[in-house]
Amino acid sequence: ISAESAGQKKDTSPEESSHGGYETLIVTTSNNITKIMFNRPEKKNAINHKMYREIIKALQEAAKDDSTIAVFTGNGEYYTSGNDLSNFSNAQPSEMGKVAKDGAELLKAFVGTFIDFPKPLIAVVNGPAIGISVTLLGLFDVVYASDKATFHTPFSHLGQSPEGCSSYTFPKIMGTAKANEMLLFNKKLTAAEACALGLVSEVFPDSTFQKEVWARLKAYASLPKNALAVSKQLLRNLEKEKLHAVNSQECEVLTERWLSDECLNAIVSFFQRKSKL
Amino acid sequence: ISAESAGQKKDTSPEESSHGGYETLIVTTSNNITKIMFNRPEKKNAINHKMYREIIKALQEAAKDDSTIAVFTGNGEYYTSGNDLSNFSNAQPSEMGKVAKDGAELLKAFVGTFIDFPKPLIAVVNGPAIGISVTLLGLFDVVYASDKATFHTPFSHLGQSPEGCSSYTFPKIMGTAKANEMLLFNKKLTAAEACALGLVSEVFPDSTFQKEVWARLKAYASLPKNALAVSKQLLRNLEKEKLHAVNSQECEVLTERWLSDECLNAIVSFFQRKSKL
Amino acid sequence: ISAESAGQKKDTSPEESSHGGYETLIVTTSNNITKIMFNRPEKKNAINHKMYREIIKALQEAAKDDSTIAVFTGNGEYYTSGNDLSNFSNAQPSEMGKVAKDGAELLKAFVGTFIDFPKPLIAVVNGPAIGISVTLLGLFDVVYASDKATFHTPFSHLGQSPEGCSSYTFPKIMGTAKANEMLLFNKKLTAAEACALGLVSEVFPDSTFQKEVWARLKAYASLPKNALAVSKQLLRNLEKEKLHAVNSQECEVLTERWLSDECLNAIVSFFQRKSKL
Repeated sequence: ISAESAGQKKDTSPEESSHGGYETLIVTTSNNITKIMFNRPEKKNAINHKMYREIIKALQEAAKDDSTIAVFTGNGEYYTSGNDLSNFSNAQPSEMGKVAKDGAELLKAFVGTFIDFPKPLIAVVNGPAIGISVTLLGLFDVVYASDKATFHTPFSHLGQSPEGCSSYTFPKIMGTAKANEMLLFNKKLTAAEACALGLVSEVFPDSTFQKEVWARLKAYASLPKNALAVSKQLLRNLEKEKLHAVNSQECEVLTERWLSDECLNAIVSFFQRKSKL
Repeated sequence: ISAESAGQKKDTSPEESSHGGYETLIVTTSNNITKIMFNRPEKKNAINHKMYREIIKALQEAAKDDSTIAVFTGNGEYYTSGNDLSNFSNAQPSEMGKVAKDGAELLKAFVGTFIDFPKPLIAVVNGPAIGISVTLLGLFDVVYASDKATFHTPFSHLGQSPEGCSSYTFPKIMGTAKANEMLLFNKKLTAAEACALGLVSEVFPDSTFQKEVWARLKAYASLPKNALAVSKQLLRNLEKEKLHAVNSQECEVLTERWLSDECLNAIVSFFQRKSKL
Repeated sequence: ISAESAGQKKDTSPEESSHGGYETLIVTTSNNITKIMFNRPEKKNAINHKMYREIIKALQEAAKDDSTIAVFTGNGEYYTSGNDLSNFSNAQPSEMGKVAKDGAELLKAFVGTFIDFPKPLIAVVNGPAIGISVTLLGLFDVVYASDKATFHTPFSHLGQSPEGCSSYTFPKIMGTAKANEMLLFNKKLTAAEACALGLVSEVFPDSTFQKEVWARLKAYASLPKNALAVSKQLLRNLEKEKLHAVNSQECEVLTERWLSDECLNAIVSFFQRKSKL
């Protein structure tokens, strides 16, 4: 039994309640914390359309439940490998217009749910994070990472463009010169680098990560609940309108990208490389 | 005689002029520098209503006097311990509505005076800083700190919410993942941590702090005065309207907080713990 | 032959095309990269009015040519020493009103061209950078620096005020407490300091700087071209209007500064000191 799974078990206390009806997530509430765990470990927790919809639902429920804070984490080695590219590759060429439009609509609703979430939202990044799971971190309130975590947004490599409000949040967090190495030129960050740039709040050794982080989160969740919610909303409301506008703009640009030759060729290459392995 | 007090004496040059009429501050001008010193050392320089009003007055005078820059510092061990909680605890329950409303109005005018200050404003943080004295640092132009300084904003712990425009300035300065550890979850920073995050410009060993900082400030105060004022105003004017809007919003949220059970219970607990010591 | 010039020669590949018609710049395109090199090494690459105009022209051409990215660098020891002060000193006192107005108009058009540039723009800072060449870095997408580079904006020392949108970009990149040490109080940064503050993406040892950076830039320039341009524009469009407003405001303030006694006296002193050397 690894320290990680031991730490996770510890969190499964008698008073934990499990939320049913999810296929791609494990959603539980205990100690005033609603935990939403990506649960497609055999697919590196890649986010398919079903998972997008289930995350929206889980967030909407967590917004209304009795919990004080909500926490995202991943089951297995990965936090999540981001958008499941088979969301595209399964489509017929003739359908691509509709697939791109529907995908952008789903993405916009998905990111919008993070923008609107009314309680403190914390990421527990247990391993590699890719794409949309990285960009979304700019919409979290606190981000804790294992030293095994990495942060990678290979948009241009795939002929695509930034989403998750990262075109706004990343330059704000780390400045343009650092943000564009990630968002334009696909630079992958270690956990320590992401922490130095302010994308991550603190990094922990993987051996004690789960234990230390969950002890801290329990302490956070015992603070005055309304003070936390009101403070979070105070900060968010200052830029909520801007964030929704950015999200719209990003999804519009991305729709065009998804229909571009650059993107289609990049995705074909991706699956060709994969099938040769 | 410690290095600190020796350093402060050195600054008391023959041509220094002392501004009369202050009870909670020591205000002096020399070498083109107006120095405003918090002066309730026996109360850790806690800011009571009188001190709020005197700081507003001192800033309004410094805006008009011949000085090139204005500097805040604290007398004794603390920079300041922030809002004097006896501002609330002395009130009768029936008066709390009015006390909260008046307090918010005073706070709004107080923070507004910092937003509007037209010359370079520098903090010389000689020791621990708490609450409003920390959040206000986001409105200073330069912040120098002794390595004995700490930075603590325990808002949610007291059932309260961020002020001093920190809900806007802190995420801008250090990014959301770092700002929210402070503003939502009460993380206390060392001077070195605050410097790494950009809240502090530079940290000095306490033994040479006063000497080094005041030498530097004298050099700053000998630069072309109008160029400095015009440059400061150029930077501030880009977000002055936004800052006033943020200040209003924060004070409105805080008024509700002060009347909440979470806040009242937290303040009662604070004084109970204190009386037991 | 130094490592640097060797590195630069390596970049001069057979398929390189040289753009004619420039006196103060060397402009070449190869490997999908348009390189714009400041070329007044005997004047530390100081930017005179001719160079301002040629840079505008070179950027407008690079916006339309086949290149994927555009890169600025300096010929010789300096990146550039910034605004050539003889732009002012050659004027008769009676002409100063017109000189200041024309200078501000040129500066505004110059900075505006950087704001509007539609492709990834990268600075290769080979040595000391001063004034406008430093402030403009906030409008670049990526900034690579030799460890021999320094970053200095001595505006108030010369009775002047910040330009190049730095009054907006610098506080956004590094926070007010760090930005104002540079913009108000003339603090000169080492390359390592500039990198820690986010003004620079990465620093390289001077001995391998050219080789490492150009290898990286070639890799960047082979990424999908439209994805890069669209992503850059997505990020820039979020604040393009704001940047143009800031640029206007800065140029207006600077026009008044150039006509002030503080500025005229500082420039006279500068040339007196220089003539004594």
